[in-house]
Amino acid sequence: MPIVLYDLAGGDGRRFSPYCWRVRLALAHKGLEVETRPVCFTEIAAIGPGQTTVPVIEADGRQMRESFDIALHLEETYPDRPSLFGGEGGVALSRFVEAWANGVLNPGLMPFVVADIHAIVADKDRGYFRESREKRFGGRTLEALQAGREERLDGFRKTLEPLRAVLRRQPFLGGAAPLYADYIVAGSLQWARVVSAFRILADDDLVADWFGRVLDLHGGLGRSQRAA
Amino acid sequence: MPIVLYDLAGGDGRRFSPYCWRVRLALAHKGLEVETRPVCFTEIAAIGPGQTTVPVIEADGRQMRESFDIALHLEETYPDRPSLFGGEGGVALSRFVEAWANGVLNPGLMPFVVADIHAIVADKDRGYFRESREKRFGGRTLEALQAGREERLDGFRKTLEPLRAVLRRQPFLGGAAPLYADYIVAGSLQWARVVSAFRILADDDLVADWFGRVLDLHGGLGRSQRAA
Repeated sequence: MPIVLYDLAGGDGRRFSPYCWRVRLALAHKGLEVETRPVCFTEIAAIGPGQTTVPVIEADGRQMRESFDIALHLEETYPDRPSLFGGEGGVALSRFVEAWANGVLNPGLMPFVVADIHAIVADKDRGYFRESREKRFGGRTLEALQAGREERLDGFRKTLEPLRAVLRRQPFLGGAAPLYADYIVAGSLQWARVVSAFRILADDDLVADWFGRVLDLHGGLGRSQRAA
Repeated sequence: MPIVLYDLAGGDGRRFSPYCWRVRLALAHKGLEVETRPVCFTEIAAIGPGQTTVPVIEADGRQMRESFDIALHLEETYPDRPSLFGGEGGVALSRFVEAWANGVLNPGLMPFVVADIHAIVADKDRGYFRESREKRFGGRTLEALQAGREERLDGFRKTLEPLRAVLRRQPFLGGAAPLYADYIVAGSLQWARVVSAFRILADDDLVADWFGRVLDLHGGLGRSQRAA
C-alpha cells in the first residue's frame, strides 16, 4: 500500500506547499510510492486528531507530521535506500539548512508571492488566508505586502549568496548528489514557482541552474507541477 | 613532531583570526599537538611561496592553507579520531554553514569590531589594515564603519536566528556533540570576543550559551585566549 501524503492544494488542485514538496521529493528519493490527497488550508483539521499543518503522511495506519520528522522516519525505515542525510553529521547540519530556509528564505520569498497565493487558494480558503497572513504581517494587506516587488528583488537575491557559494563548489547542497537539504531549499523555490509568474531568480543565477537540476530529479517530479 | 599552525596575531600576541580559530579547534578535536607560530598580516607572504592568507599549517614538511581544506585533510589523515564532519553529508552541508559564516556572519560582525581590530593589530600592520579595509568598504573610515553600533545591534542579533532555531533542538550545530560546523561559527564569535570589549551577544541568548560550551571544549582552549 502506498504511503499517503496529505498535500496542500490550491483551488485548481495545484500543489504549492514548500513543506509538502520537501516530503514529496524525499519520498521519491527513497523510491517510495505515494498517493497524494489534496487538502486545502481549511480542511487540514479534518485529516486527523490534532492535525494543524501539512504535510501529514499516513503509513501502516499511523499519521505523522512535520516534514523533517517525516524525512528522519523515512531514513530510519528505509536505511537501504539512497540516504537523505549522508550520515549523522548530515542530519544535524540539515537542521541548519532548515532553519535558514524557514527563517530567512521563506519569509524573504513571502512578500513576493503572498497576494498571488491568495489568488490561487481554494475559494473557501480565501478568508482564512487573508486574515491569518495580514495579521502575521502587522495588519498590512496582502496587496500592500507584495507591492513594489521589482524594487526589492536585488536585495532578496543577495540573501541567496550562501547557496551560490556552495553551488560554486558542488552540484548539490548535499555534494555530488542531492540530499534532503536540497529538497528543503528547493521546496521553497517550488512554492514560488507554482503560485506566481513573478520571476524570482535570474536565468544566469547558479541557484536557478541548481533548482532546474532538482526539478529534473526523479523523473522530473518537480516539473510535473507546472509553473504559474 | 607537532603540526605547525601559522596563526594571525595582534601586537600583543593575541590570536584573533576566525579562520585560524576554526583550525585550532579542529586540531584539538582530533587530539593533535600543535605548535602555533604568531604572524601578523604583513608577515604572511614570508610563511612560504604563494601564501597570502592564514591559517597555514605545516606537517611533514608540507604547507597547506584554507581552513576547510585543512579540516578535510585532518579528517582524511586521522579517520580513527573523533570525526569533524560525521560522514559525507556532514562534509557537504558544512560548506553551507561555512558559506553562511563567511558571507553573512563575518560581514555582519565586521562593522561592530573593525576599528577595534585596527587598535590591536601589530604597529606595522596598521597601515595595511586601514587601507585594505577602508577600500573594501567603499572608502569609509574604520571609525565611521564602527560608529553607531549600539543602534545596529538588534538587527545583527536577528541574523543569528538560524543558529538559535537549531540550538533550541540540539546542544551543538553538529548535534549532541560538536563538529567542524561548530568551529566555523564559533571562530567568528571568538574573533569578536578577542578583539573587542563590545558585547555582541545578550547573556540570555541561546547562541551565547552554545558559544560558552564551545569555549569550554578541549580543556577550555577557546577561553585560554582572554576576551578583550
